[in-house]
Amino acid sequence: MWPRTDLLKLLKVEHPIVQAPMAGTATVALAAAVSNAGALGSLGCAEDPLVTIRQNVDALRLATDKPFNLNFFAHRPPREDRAVVARTRDLIKPFYEQAGLTKVPDALEAPFGTFDPDSLSLLLALRPAVTSFHFGLPETAAVKDLQKAGCIVLCSATTVAEAKALNEAGVDAIIAQGWEAGGHRGSVDSHYEDFGIGTMALVPQIVDTVDVPVIAAGGIADGRGIAAAFALGASGVQMGTAFLSCPETSISDVHRAALRNAVDQDTRLTRAFSGRPARARNSRYIEAMAEHRAPLPDFPTMYTLSGPLLDAADQDRDFHFLLHGQAAALNRELPAAELVRTLVKETLDLL
Amino acid sequence: MWPRTDLLKLLKVEHPIVQAPMAGTATVALAAAVSNAGALGSLGCAEDPLVTIRQNVDALRLATDKPFNLNFFAHRPPREDRAVVARTRDLIKPFYEQAGLTKVPDALEAPFGTFDPDSLSLLLALRPAVTSFHFGLPETAAVKDLQKAGCIVLCSATTVAEAKALNEAGVDAIIAQGWEAGGHRGSVDSHYEDFGIGTMALVPQIVDTVDVPVIAAGGIADGRGIAAAFALGASGVQMGTAFLSCPETSISDVHRAALRNAVDQDTRLTRAFSGRPARARNSRYIEAMAEHRAPLPDFPTMYTLSGPLLDAADQDRDFHFLLHGQAAALNRELPAAELVRTLVKETLDLL
Repeated sequence: MWPRTDLLKLLKVEHPIVQAPMAGTATVALAAAVSNAGALGSLGCAEDPLVTIRQNVDALRLATDKPFNLNFFAHRPPREDRAVVARTRDLIKPFYEQAGLTKVPDALEAPFGTFDPDSLSLLLALRPAVTSFHFGLPETAAVKDLQKAGCIVLCSATTVAEAKALNEAGVDAIIAQGWEAGGHRGSVDSHYEDFGIGTMALVPQIVDTVDVPVIAAGGIADGRGIAAAFALGASGVQMGTAFLSCPETSISDVHRAALRNAVDQDTRLTRAFSGRPARARNSRYIEAMAEHRAPLPDFPTMYTLSGPLLDAADQDRDFHFLLHGQAAALNRELPAAELVRTLVKETLDLL
Repeated sequence: MWPRTDLLKLLKVEHPIVQAPMAGTATVALAAAVSNAGALGSLGCAEDPLVTIRQNVDALRLATDKPFNLNFFAHRPPREDRAVVARTRDLIKPFYEQAGLTKVPDALEAPFGTFDPDSLSLLLALRPAVTSFHFGLPETAAVKDLQKAGCIVLCSATTVAEAKALNEAGVDAIIAQGWEAGGHRGSVDSHYEDFGIGTMALVPQIVDTVDVPVIAAGGIADGRGIAAAFALGASGVQMGTAFLSCPETSISDVHRAALRNAVDQDTRLTRAFSGRPARARNSRYIEAMAEHRAPLPDFPTMYTLSGPLLDAADQDRDFHFLLHGQAAALNRELPAAELVRTLVKETLDLL
């Protein structure tokens, strides 16, 4: 069976596969199907109001009695730099014109907050088996409170230094997120764009540094990737892109079609939608914005400026924000439960 | 033993490990030690005059009767764009001033040529067991001539499309070079900077596309990485950085010291020395030049402008060009033969 079982015992799951939370994309149906299949289903809660989170968890509990993971963003609250905003408004204006939009928004707003005491209270009331964080951890007291309440706490690291800090802060396991991964890079720091460390290099270096189980993420598409992650010393994997093509996700038809014709080199990192680097399908807007190396408004307030363009993306593909990783071409369109079974079989056949 | 033996049979070696040719760094002593240990030693010949190549091969044949690999660059001959040169001279001037240099060179020269009929004639005379190419292949007739002469022909690919083209051109095996790899990216195209595909994502996608053995490269530092490469479907690995710390290499003391204190996030891609993207230890010069996205003079004529800065690097570390990959922190300082034995044992213990 599995060559390492520490993560299985920790998460109380049968298979060492975490379905990435993918805020806005992973549904209750997806998480339930994955958890019921013996892996760890996840819900991305970061962008939802507390009342929605509570409803989703109620629904998820009706659909499964297995462990699941609730994911939150613990980013620094955004600051507003008027000069940065003014420059970015100028930068983005030609794209507004292309999209037939007239007015670039003036005041920036955060469409959602960072993990805060209210989120913590809700989590302590809901007591999910697992909670994971992206963009760093909340304060140590919150982590301890969660653990005292019986929650296993995971957090993403994109460098050895981040993993070391998470280990010292007492997380139960670390998600080593390599350069290949789709979606937002979970880095704490902002100096991360040019140093993206590939999964092959990152995982063993983190394994050698920390004393908790490591969950490999980034570019893992099938049983070959899972077996490779184990060879590198990981105790499990987190997979996002591979689950994107499941019928249980809420991605658009355009996104689903994009996954069908994905090739290895059609994604790149972009800050141009949220203000933080995320790997997404390349587009003219992403490419043009990449030329500008100057700071953009802080995550997630940049969405105020990109939002109208995103809304226009139905008419103009230049503005699509289609998140996926570098191995999307290996995706299979299978119901989530069948995908989990397939991944497990493929991996065990190799081990 | 090894789960796949197609590459072993092809290369007529005992262990599926290719020591990367690392022009200017890999020595006859290194290649001989690696080949004698049952892996494939390589010499980077691209920057050497033909007479030196012949001498090195004579010396290598005195030191080993095992197969070895001679590596060449098959880059497009550089064009000279006066506007690009003028802009780059302006760009680089402040660094010359910092280094106490007065005059930025005017006329650009290529310090070495691309693979040409003379190189081919020499190779056909020398008949090494293996020849590998970087930056694409020479014309198909040359590849066929080499194969008719008994040479196994390898070439690097950094994308699935490149691998497909190499497969169609008839190479005997493909080196899938992931984003993590130190040194020059072996891409054919020039649109490669922002799309660097990690080894974990690249290898299985290339394996699924081609019908020749795939050699995984990039971020592979020890037996864990080799076992992971096999899990991904590769038939062997090419390792450069791991061999850099062997006493047989000709790296400087500064380079050796840099490897000793390497961490995961201290390299980045830079075009600022050769004109082509290479992964190297980050420096102030590299960082500053990265801000400029405009074209630089073609490879390798950019060396004319960076050369004086490189010469000044003894006094000023801002100008070091220390090539290594993202997993250098895992390096061991072992004689090459012992490193090969260690890698083999580590891998077979995992398989």
